[in-house]
Amino acid sequence: MTRPVTLALTAGEPAGIGPELCLQLALEKRQPGIVVVACKRLLQVQAKQLGLEVTLEDWAPGAQAATEAGRLSVMTIDGLASTDAGRLDPANSAYVLETLRTAAQGCLDGIFDGMVTAPVHKGVINNAGIAFSGHTEFLQELCGVERVVMMLATDELRVALVTTHLPLKDVSAAITPERLAQVTRILDTDLRKFFGIDHPRILVAGLNPHAGEGGHLGREEIEVIEPTLDKLRQEGINLTGPLPADTLFTPHWLDNADAVLAMYHDQGLPVLKFQGFGRAVNITLGLPIVRTSVDHGTALDLAGTGKADAGSLQTAIRVGEQMARSAKRDSNE
Amino acid sequence: MTRPVTLALTAGEPAGIGPELCLQLALEKRQPGIVVVACKRLLQVQAKQLGLEVTLEDWAPGAQAATEAGRLSVMTIDGLASTDAGRLDPANSAYVLETLRTAAQGCLDGIFDGMVTAPVHKGVINNAGIAFSGHTEFLQELCGVERVVMMLATDELRVALVTTHLPLKDVSAAITPERLAQVTRILDTDLRKFFGIDHPRILVAGLNPHAGEGGHLGREEIEVIEPTLDKLRQEGINLTGPLPADTLFTPHWLDNADAVLAMYHDQGLPVLKFQGFGRAVNITLGLPIVRTSVDHGTALDLAGTGKADAGSLQTAIRVGEQMARSAKRDSNE
Repeated sequence: MTRPVTLALTAGEPAGIGPELCLQLALEKRQPGIVVVACKRLLQVQAKQLGLEVTLEDWAPGAQAATEAGRLSVMTIDGLASTDAGRLDPANSAYVLETLRTAAQGCLDGIFDGMVTAPVHKGVINNAGIAFSGHTEFLQELCGVERVVMMLATDELRVALVTTHLPLKDVSAAITPERLAQVTRILDTDLRKFFGIDHPRILVAGLNPHAGEGGHLGREEIEVIEPTLDKLRQEGINLTGPLPADTLFTPHWLDNADAVLAMYHDQGLPVLKFQGFGRAVNITLGLPIVRTSVDHGTALDLAGTGKADAGSLQTAIRVGEQMARSAKRDSNE
Repeated sequence: MTRPVTLALTAGEPAGIGPELCLQLALEKRQPGIVVVACKRLLQVQAKQLGLEVTLEDWAPGAQAATEAGRLSVMTIDGLASTDAGRLDPANSAYVLETLRTAAQGCLDGIFDGMVTAPVHKGVINNAGIAFSGHTEFLQELCGVERVVMMLATDELRVALVTTHLPLKDVSAAITPERLAQVTRILDTDLRKFFGIDHPRILVAGLNPHAGEGGHLGREEIEVIEPTLDKLRQEGINLTGPLPADTLFTPHWLDNADAVLAMYHDQGLPVLKFQGFGRAVNITLGLPIVRTSVDHGTALDLAGTGKADAGSLQTAIRVGEQMARSAKRDSNE
């Protein structure tokens, strides 16, 4: 019998819906063991306020994490300054980052098989005087890797991005042969390692409308993308493209592909979120650890109302578990 | 009883699937009168080759266009040099443009209520030494208007574009207050005039990821888009945005909107074509005439095989007819 997968779940911004989603999750039996990395008192307060019958159990490395309905394992993190739902407090920022650091270090140390993150609030962390541009960059630095890749996935579609949070006018210059090659190699490697796909088939979008239309609508396809894809094909990566982004997302192409590589944020994510609204998971590739995340924000206006929908978090946990199992098989081979 | 709408249908590139689609259409009874503007001999040759039983009837201005199954009205255009399916011939280019000119002039003269275009092949027209960058620009010049707007639509979704066929790196500079205001006004006006929507509700996408995230991911929203939208709101236009493009295409926003205004080609069209694959229609707004088009190309590889799908052409005709009816009501009020 396979040892159950144990995932760390960071509860994210304490004033947002993250802690509540963790509690909702505990109401039903789970497949993988989940250890919530958060302030235990915060969870207690919220459970009481929302009238959720959840027993919070202290967890220590090596122990089995609870999977039964009504029980939740917690690795408590100190330093929370305030617990008001909906009210951001910069004094909580060091605590929030400590939950991330603990979960990630636990993954690196083999205590956890992966981590799942509820949303944090970048603005309030920056207001606390701490430079922070997102989970992804934080984990990249903590794990000491040069490049990570953001991929969003639903059960039907996976979209990875060559560039992510850049002003649109800076995208063209950021599509260098080096970046494109690094991102594509990471995508190929991690589809094998974390998703058990032997020969991933990747569709690559062009940068310009109609993929440049033979140079009439931009030359990046001819000068950067095509030569780089040719080189990567010689390494054995199965790539189709560059394809016009507006016709790429149709059955003719998607039916025979494992993932789409879009050049930038708004070329790939509108379709993904249209297709998989509320069921999408955000995955960071290129890390030595498994990391998935919800695809929504802190939803401060919903916090404390009991109305938050745990659908995306459940997907993030399910995908995180699958990735962890695949990674174990991969390292045992 | 309303006089039946009469639409001109240009058969487009003679070596592509356009002529064949026109013939397929004639096999069934139609709602509006359709007059195919093309070389009659070309249609005769293709009908014979494909074994389609269609009677081609010469049409002259003022006559009723055929709507019965098996009959097709044709306004013949001379000058076709060759009729081989799948083989482009630059010598046919003057003929192709003459079909467009005849149809558009007929609309301007009130002979037709609108025009529907099958695909042309830009490359072969340019190879003939004729400057031509597409139907839209050709019709814009012929009608003498300063600005037109490209909108794609399915039964469920309408997406208009502020910029269209531009290299991605040039998009930011092209989003000027003047262009954005002109495009938005045309969209608002034509949703009223051609679609009978009294108070169109328009969702506007930002230019940058997350609509610039308060200036952290680009400043065009703050410096150009928001002030322009504010000005347009004061004119009475119902605008929501700028919204992040990746969350805009979700039920929360779409359920209460009549159209989406995207800043550029690959921000808006991938979702539209994913949602309405094979059922999308391309509409040119801002013209004094009704013009719709299929959303696919000449498909030279399919020409002559009888396998081309007339779905998009049927949608283009249906939408063209609705627009023509709405425009008549509008001008009678």
